[in-house]
Amino acid sequence: MTFAPTDSFSFVLSATSGAARTGFILTPRGTIRTPAFMPVGTVATVKGLYFDQVRAAGADIVLANTYHLMLRPGAERVAKLGGLHRFMGWGGPILTDSGGFQVMSLSSLRKMSENGVTFRSHVDGTHYELTPERAVEIQGLLGSDIQMQLDECVRLPCTDEEAARAMRLSVRWAERSKRAFEAQPKGRALFGIVQGGAVPALRVESACALADMDFPGYSIGGLAVGEPQEVMLAMIETVEPHLPITKPRYLMGVGTPDDLLEAVARGIDMFDCVMPTRSGRHALAFTRLGRINLKNARHAEDPRPLDEESDCPALRDYSRAYLHHLVRCEEMLGAMLISWANIHYYQQLMAGARDAIAAGRYADYVGEVKDGWARGDIPVWEG
Amino acid sequence: MTFAPTDSFSFVLSATSGAARTGFILTPRGTIRTPAFMPVGTVATVKGLYFDQVRAAGADIVLANTYHLMLRPGAERVAKLGGLHRFMGWGGPILTDSGGFQVMSLSSLRKMSENGVTFRSHVDGTHYELTPERAVEIQGLLGSDIQMQLDECVRLPCTDEEAARAMRLSVRWAERSKRAFEAQPKGRALFGIVQGGAVPALRVESACALADMDFPGYSIGGLAVGEPQEVMLAMIETVEPHLPITKPRYLMGVGTPDDLLEAVARGIDMFDCVMPTRSGRHALAFTRLGRINLKNARHAEDPRPLDEESDCPALRDYSRAYLHHLVRCEEMLGAMLISWANIHYYQQLMAGARDAIAAGRYADYVGEVKDGWARGDIPVWEG
Ligand SMILES: [Zn+2]
Ligand SMILES: [Zn+2]
Repeated sequence: MTFAPTDSFSFVLSATSGAARTGFILTPRGTIRTPAFMPVGTVATVKGLYFDQVRAAGADIVLANTYHLMLRPGAERVAKLGGLHRFMGWGGPILTDSGGFQVMSLSSLRKMSENGVTFRSHVDGTHYELTPERAVEIQGLLGSDIQMQLDECVRLPCTDEEAARAMRLSVRWAERSKRAFEAQPKGRALFGIVQGGAVPALRVESACALADMDFPGYSIGGLAVGEPQEVMLAMIETVEPHLPITKPRYLMGVGTPDDLLEAVARGIDMFDCVMPTRSGRHALAFTRLGRINLKNARHAEDPRPLDEESDCPALRDYSRAYLHHLVRCEEMLGAMLISWANIHYYQQLMAGARDAIAAGRYADYVGEVKDGWARGDIPVWEG
Repeated sequence: MTFAPTDSFSFVLSATSGAARTGFILTPRGTIRTPAFMPVGTVATVKGLYFDQVRAAGADIVLANTYHLMLRPGAERVAKLGGLHRFMGWGGPILTDSGGFQVMSLSSLRKMSENGVTFRSHVDGTHYELTPERAVEIQGLLGSDIQMQLDECVRLPCTDEEAARAMRLSVRWAERSKRAFEAQPKGRALFGIVQGGAVPALRVESACALADMDFPGYSIGGLAVGEPQEVMLAMIETVEPHLPITKPRYLMGVGTPDDLLEAVARGIDMFDCVMPTRSGRHALAFTRLGRINLKNARHAEDPRPLDEESDCPALRDYSRAYLHHLVRCEEMLGAMLISWANIHYYQQLMAGARDAIAAGRYADYVGEVKDGWARGDIPVWEG
């Protein structure tokens, strides 16, 4: 399906299969096929990949981190250079987070207040302030197509009181973010972020409050931070009925291929995660045959590629023996190739999900994919 | 000029300009245009580049290191996997060194004898022996197209006696290497290596002894090891008259772009050096505008590429501001792009040399290139 160029942001839901949905997010910079996995370009680069490879792997949109970019090279500098798309050489849509999550996990000397958060950079100790208004301003300077409200992520486990306080603060910040966002050009979108820890009633309160504000999309934050998968899935099931059907839902920072399949089954449309590239730098490949650790000596003399049936050069054109050798020697090319293979597999997994949902057979698809993982890797090479 | 497929190794000298030469080395795996710069693929990868990029940059041949490959993954293993070309995915000619130089510079517990050298791996301490015969055997197992005799490189400065001893041992090893090489398939070549430290008489003795043995090509070793450029050039001038005109001459481990131009002017046909990729990992770009240090803050807001006139994407399609940012963040893509740019520039420099020699204007070419370096980089961006 192709769409005419648009100057506005919209979501077209084209098919469902159970609670799983497939559709299209239309933006002035291009169409995003959902369910979508967004490769993470933390500091304006998807680590170890050329953007041509990211695109060819099937990604319609990439994510960049506001926190990292506000420290280096700085939002004003990126704006001066023509915005993030031009800066990094990616013409498609970009989603940015608000910076809140990384402030909590990376910076030091944090001080939260009703107004926002002050902190010191983990890079050079510089003092910064991030408010809902400034987070939106930064994302505007970057030229982000899909922006996130500033929210407060609490670490799990935490008390219900603490989760409630942070969630309600985030709802107030959602309102301020929305007002600040009105200054931005048409065609961009600001998503509200559902918080509430692992407390169902708080999650529902958050989702309903944000839904009342009528955002063009909704994120679910504060999950995939170490809790068991069933807790994450239960929270998605709790929240989902309270989010408008007609708006995209983005599960932030998730996850493994299995997490993606299960979250799609529960109505999620968008994902991002560093896992494919981070694992790629640590020799772990995600494939239709399951996880393959290229450090393992079983690959040392194996002339076969990771997946001879793949159309991705990284999976098809390099022997396991060569990948194993590169990994052992800590060569850049090893990280480059396995990261590329993983980005490709994540995209392939989502493409398969979209097709299966369109055909009304998403549950079957999940079964088939999981059977493939369970069968596991090809037998050890006996050459 | 194109050549019909050949099953033998030969050198065609097609033009000279002063002492500078241009020609073609014909091999069963393809033609090498000379003067040639060979990118270094130490452990079967040119660090940070895809081989497609190496080829597209204009490289006809790459170098791989026998020492590194005998340790990891091991020559027998590479042979089992179908040879080095298939292992690393490079179909063109490959030149391998003999391992002697790295044994001297990297390994520990070396013991030299008439028979060869024993040492411990710098990776895991494993004990190895390298003899002239084994060095040739390893290169044969790798499937190398142009192989090097084992030689002894002494560290400069050293006494004349020490330089003489090592040179004469290397000549005896040349004879043994040549005998051992006779077992290999037709179409491959073994080069003798001229040694003799910085002592002209020893260099001449070495060159004449090797020339008498009638090698298909001659290397000059033991230079570019820290001595001033004029010493290196003087040694080339000393040796050159004693090398057969009809055979290619390879100056090992050299060098800067300026070293290459000056050595070509003195009759050298082939080079290899880690400088373009090593510098690329340290933010230093070699360009027609001279050396550009991308760490420098002057690039931080510069939207211009390294060289807008280049046909290399790394030089043309990424802003200096973006490269500077990648370097500051120690992102892989920074090393990938600057290494690529440098490999491209080295190839471009040699392509220009070949054209200029063919046109009988090599001295002019050298002047033009050096003028370009002297004019230096474009003015600081004042945007
Ligand atoms: Zn509700
Ligand atoms: Zn002579």
